[in-house]
Amino acid sequence: MIVSRGIHLGWLLRRNALALATLVAYDVAITFAYVWLHWHWLAIPMLPLPLLGSAIALILTIRNNAAYARWWEARTLWGAILNNSRNFARGVLTQIDDAALGRRLIRCQIAYALALRCHLLRQSSAEVLAQYLPPDLAETCGRAANVPMAIQIAMGRDLAAARSDGKLDTVTVANLDRTLAAVVDAQGGLERIKNTPLPRQYSALPLVFSGAYCVVLPLGLVKALALATPLGSALIGFMFLILNEVGDDLEDPFSNDMHDVPMKAITRTLEIDLLQSIGVTDVPPPITPQNGILP
Amino acid sequence: MIVSRGIHLGWLLRRNALALATLVAYDVAITFAYVWLHWHWLAIPMLPLPLLGSAIALILTIRNNAAYARWWEARTLWGAILNNSRNFARGVLTQIDDAALGRRLIRCQIAYALALRCHLLRQSSAEVLAQYLPPDLAETCGRAANVPMAIQIAMGRDLAAARSDGKLDTVTVANLDRTLAAVVDAQGGLERIKNTPLPRQYSALPLVFSGAYCVVLPLGLVKALALATPLGSALIGFMFLILNEVGDDLEDPFSNDMHDVPMKAITRTLEIDLLQSIGVTDVPPPITPQNGILP
Amino acid sequence: MIVSRGIHLGWLLRRNALALATLVAYDVAITFAYVWLHWHWLAIPMLPLPLLGSAIALILTIRNNAAYARWWEARTLWGAILNNSRNFARGVLTQIDDAALGRRLIRCQIAYALALRCHLLRQSSAEVLAQYLPPDLAETCGRAANVPMAIQIAMGRDLAAARSDGKLDTVTVANLDRTLAAVVDAQGGLERIKNTPLPRQYSALPLVFSGAYCVVLPLGLVKALALATPLGSALIGFMFLILNEVGDDLEDPFSNDMHDVPMKAITRTLEIDLLQSIGVTDVPPPITPQNGILP
Amino acid sequence: MIVSRGIHLGWLLRRNALALATLVAYDVAITFAYVWLHWHWLAIPMLPLPLLGSAIALILTIRNNAAYARWWEARTLWGAILNNSRNFARGVLTQIDDAALGRRLIRCQIAYALALRCHLLRQSSAEVLAQYLPPDLAETCGRAANVPMAIQIAMGRDLAAARSDGKLDTVTVANLDRTLAAVVDAQGGLERIKNTPLPRQYSALPLVFSGAYCVVLPLGLVKALALATPLGSALIGFMFLILNEVGDDLEDPFSNDMHDVPMKAITRTLEIDLLQSIGVTDVPPPITPQNGILP
Amino acid sequence: MIVSRGIHLGWLLRRNALALATLVAYDVAITFAYVWLHWHWLAIPMLPLPLLGSAIALILTIRNNAAYARWWEARTLWGAILNNSRNFARGVLTQIDDAALGRRLIRCQIAYALALRCHLLRQSSAEVLAQYLPPDLAETCGRAANVPMAIQIAMGRDLAAARSDGKLDTVTVANLDRTLAAVVDAQGGLERIKNTPLPRQYSALPLVFSGAYCVVLPLGLVKALALATPLGSALIGFMFLILNEVGDDLEDPFSNDMHDVPMKAITRTLEIDLLQSIGVTDVPPPITPQNGILP
Repeated sequence: MIVSRGIHLGWLLRRNALALATLVAYDVAITFAYVWLHWHWLAIPMLPLPLLGSAIALILTIRNNAAYARWWEARTLWGAILNNSRNFARGVLTQIDDAALGRRLIRCQIAYALALRCHLLRQSSAEVLAQYLPPDLAETCGRAANVPMAIQIAMGRDLAAARSDGKLDTVTVANLDRTLAAVVDAQGGLERIKNTPLPRQYSALPLVFSGAYCVVLPLGLVKALALATPLGSALIGFMFLILNEVGDDLEDPFSNDMHDVPMKAITRTLEIDLLQSIGVTDVPPPITPQNGILP
Repeated sequence: MIVSRGIHLGWLLRRNALALATLVAYDVAITFAYVWLHWHWLAIPMLPLPLLGSAIALILTIRNNAAYARWWEARTLWGAILNNSRNFARGVLTQIDDAALGRRLIRCQIAYALALRCHLLRQSSAEVLAQYLPPDLAETCGRAANVPMAIQIAMGRDLAAARSDGKLDTVTVANLDRTLAAVVDAQGGLERIKNTPLPRQYSALPLVFSGAYCVVLPLGLVKALALATPLGSALIGFMFLILNEVGDDLEDPFSNDMHDVPMKAITRTLEIDLLQSIGVTDVPPPITPQNGILP
Repeated sequence: MIVSRGIHLGWLLRRNALALATLVAYDVAITFAYVWLHWHWLAIPMLPLPLLGSAIALILTIRNNAAYARWWEARTLWGAILNNSRNFARGVLTQIDDAALGRRLIRCQIAYALALRCHLLRQSSAEVLAQYLPPDLAETCGRAANVPMAIQIAMGRDLAAARSDGKLDTVTVANLDRTLAAVVDAQGGLERIKNTPLPRQYSALPLVFSGAYCVVLPLGLVKALALATPLGSALIGFMFLILNEVGDDLEDPFSNDMHDVPMKAITRTLEIDLLQSIGVTDVPPPITPQNGILP
Repeated sequence: MIVSRGIHLGWLLRRNALALATLVAYDVAITFAYVWLHWHWLAIPMLPLPLLGSAIALILTIRNNAAYARWWEARTLWGAILNNSRNFARGVLTQIDDAALGRRLIRCQIAYALALRCHLLRQSSAEVLAQYLPPDLAETCGRAANVPMAIQIAMGRDLAAARSDGKLDTVTVANLDRTLAAVVDAQGGLERIKNTPLPRQYSALPLVFSGAYCVVLPLGLVKALALATPLGSALIGFMFLILNEVGDDLEDPFSNDMHDVPMKAITRTLEIDLLQSIGVTDVPPPITPQNGILP
Repeated sequence: MIVSRGIHLGWLLRRNALALATLVAYDVAITFAYVWLHWHWLAIPMLPLPLLGSAIALILTIRNNAAYARWWEARTLWGAILNNSRNFARGVLTQIDDAALGRRLIRCQIAYALALRCHLLRQSSAEVLAQYLPPDLAETCGRAANVPMAIQIAMGRDLAAARSDGKLDTVTVANLDRTLAAVVDAQGGLERIKNTPLPRQYSALPLVFSGAYCVVLPLGLVKALALATPLGSALIGFMFLILNEVGDDLEDPFSNDMHDVPMKAITRTLEIDLLQSIGVTDVPPPITPQNGILP
């Protein structure tokens, strides 16, 4: 996630240099052919550009709104995982008397969150399992297709065993179970966003339309603007291409690029909070932005 | 659901070849009649096309937003069924000591989800019932009008019997019952989307308006664009027709076509997860996209 | 609710014949006066029609979005009543041992839903009360101002009596009571939609604005379009009038017309499901669409 | 709340007579100066009015959507208070055996709702407290800054005392307490809407922009429209002013004017329902609209 | 938060004097160069300004809607903290018999809310901790990275100790714990809004686009408007810059400026309510607006 306030014109130009250069080159070519080569058949001055523009604005609005909603929902669901993990930790600490069991459950929950991040990024979570789970559990869970879900089931088994042993009463187990269910719900939402892309038509049409628009734009403007064509045409075309790109950046919030929801920072916060709650003092440092990007 | 990133201009052109050809043929005919036959009365150059365009944009925006909302709600509700099935399985495994009863309930829940998919597609679910339910129950439930609901009621009876027999205490039954109620809620939402189409006016008007627009568009443009009329006219008309089609594709998410919510993949995930949770190792493989379509 | 896919241009023209005829007659009159009578002062060619059009589009968008949201919320709330009635029936059947009491409660719930439909349509519910309630209860509830609420209170009393008699434990009563509370919440939402119309300004302005627009439209177009004025003018005016009508149709979902939420079909589904759940086999048939309308 | 369907052009004209007269007078003055006094420097024919119009449309859309959302949320929250009061009454009647305590609690709840209305309108609630509370409680609560909250706390104390005396068990108290908490949540939402106006910029800008627009509109149109300027200019300006006013009317739903949420009618419904539930037959009549306004 | 109704044209002009002056100076310079210096190459009269305007309107709408949604969600979450604190206080007073423990918990909850405000503003909360917490707890909590969270955990420990000592039964602890969990959820939401800025592209693009627009606007208008250029150009440019600023003001609701959610007033209300509920009479006065700003 970009957190730097330093996004300005220069940044945008640099980042989209190639698209912009292609656009300008094309516009200059059209202008050159019209003004110096006198290929006047190129100009279609009465082309109804505003009609085209409004069709593109329509699809861009729908797409960008939906992309932002996906991104913000992903962020909200990670927030729910953070909240419910804290609630789970508080519940464990205040309602379970067996301190060793409490520590084990809280370490499982840390492993769960870290593994969930790996799961969404399609990365191996072997390292985090080794760090926070007992070796045998790390081994078993690591083999599952859905690693975080396997950790959850193991935690459920621990709770059930504690209940059978009489360490926990039914109400306490039901309470903790409800918190875990809220975590599972949030995970389900994250997997939904990961596995269900924005309908491909919404995703692809803005680019197709914007591209077509950039192609016909100088044809429609060259007779009126003459030498100023590249300026007017590139400015408008560039705006639509950037708007398309903004939607593109946000529509997949777990794609391991700089527009991702900052999962690394969120899981680190969770790691620190939960470790401190069980008295660990040697905690990893919080994640800070690098070059304006919070991973 | 289309998951391939390969939707590009060519794909769109191929898929809409007929509509596009009709459109171009009509535009060419108008141009021909105007330029070569000199039927100048055809041209209505001052036609207020932007006004027409804004009326169409208005209805298309409302319709496409509503269609996407329906599609995404359907996906979210299937996610809720998946989540709550997992929660139900975890609850059964950790709170019921009678392993045979647990297995039976979890197999019922698998049958439920598979039968729900068939129910929404108006297909027979005999096969899945035979696979996962005891013969007598498959027989009884298969005759019900609402097969998944009948399976739910049978599960409720099992729970009640277990409570009467003293195998389960009241709190556990209440907990499991709440999870089943959440599943019923999600099913109710899915049936609502299935049985309540988008108001037919919203569904039909964009096509009527876009069609009317495509008919008058070349009449309004032909005097100004002359030979370029088919280009300008078909480009704009095509955009509006495609936008209409995108809404059309999404507005009914259970119509057994390639734009459906990927119910087969979701139910298979659920099947694998729940089978593995009761120790079955010989599970069916996950569904993968074929030709870019995830069924 | 219209379910037929047969809404097409012809249907729209037939249904709005009068409005369209008035519109065309007016446009023809203006054209006649301008072209043959040479009343040139009628034409105001520079009238800023797009500005007018955008003001109308703005109010139409807000109104139609709000109207559709009301309609869909009404449908969702009826879905909640259906879901929670099923949940209530399942709870009653699996948690109450006194079969006669269970049957009585479930018949009450059927009467409740049927009476709620009558209540929203401001119709008498005497018939449904007589069919599903014991005579004395039908008598008492029928006199209440809010018949469905009276049935709910009677059901609450039955539950309380069963608890006092020791037939039900506290947890079960609390569970069933929560389901009934969810039903009351949904009823409250339905009454809110029924009793609180869309703010009258939102409801009335689109018609006032569209009407004013249709009046000035031919004045602005007649100089440019001449004999084609009725075509262009009626087409645009007709679009705005239809868009207004779509919002009008949906904004009151319980007005006893063909655009209503299909309450009859929903309550019949509920009736069948709940009767079958208590072993009644002689159930009424499901409601099917007639002439494309599902009542 | 306006419930009359009689909002038509005449009503709108009458209600906005002053604004309209000012607008027309200004437009006529500009026209007069241009046409008769030949102050041709007044006309700025190429003024980019559509650009101005789209900026105004943008801010009006955002504002009016937000204002309507506030109004509808306020109505929904009052609905929640009505629902939960009914649920509370049903819970009290079916779960509390001490009839005197039940009556007292239900009368407190009536006083609460009536006092909440006074609280939101910043009116004294002394009268309703005297009517429904025991004198000493009316005295104590009447002195509190937040009268309805004080009544709630008194009800909580009654419940706690009943629990201490062994009249109520823990589960029942928890159930009733949850209903009261839902009422407090709704009150919190209502106070939020009351105390947090729409951001003043959103509230003020539409008027500033619309006013500026109305000032420059005739300057831009007078050269083209000449004597028809007041018609075109006043029509457009009037539309924008009315749209602004609609948002203004709805943005504060508790301002003691005719656009308010109909709190008097809602609280009266609650009063009647709850009085009847404790067997009072001499209830006040329902509130009916007067001159099309439901207070 | 601005509560004064005195936002009018003068206020806006004063507040944006610099931007407006720059804009006017630039527009005058262009006009001067064109009209007196006859630099006619400056004018690009056919520049498609409406196309540019619609791209800017699109991005501004999305941004301003999202910014307002963030602001209103922040306000709603603070409302949830206020509500649940009151619910917690009512629960403590009516369900805990140990008055000293009750007072201590309620004072902790006050400290929590005040510390949360400091936490969101990145200010020290030492003062409020000293005022409301016992010295040792103030010391411990003050050292935590997340001060309000540390207070919550301390409260959880108090409840757990009371349960171990037999002062509270399980159901009561579960009830109070659920209220605290709702508070934690709201805090999580507030931290999400604080730590996750609006995607920087949405935040930065409106300014970049509006700026570019203001630069080319006089070039496009100067030929047509001549001496009136600064008027038309500055009016439109100013509108877009103000719209951009409105979004900017709202997008970060905890930035310690006059557009913030009024956290000081909300926490003071909470402080007064909770202090009065434990019988403290010497409470601080409510916060009132100063110069139309409620802090």
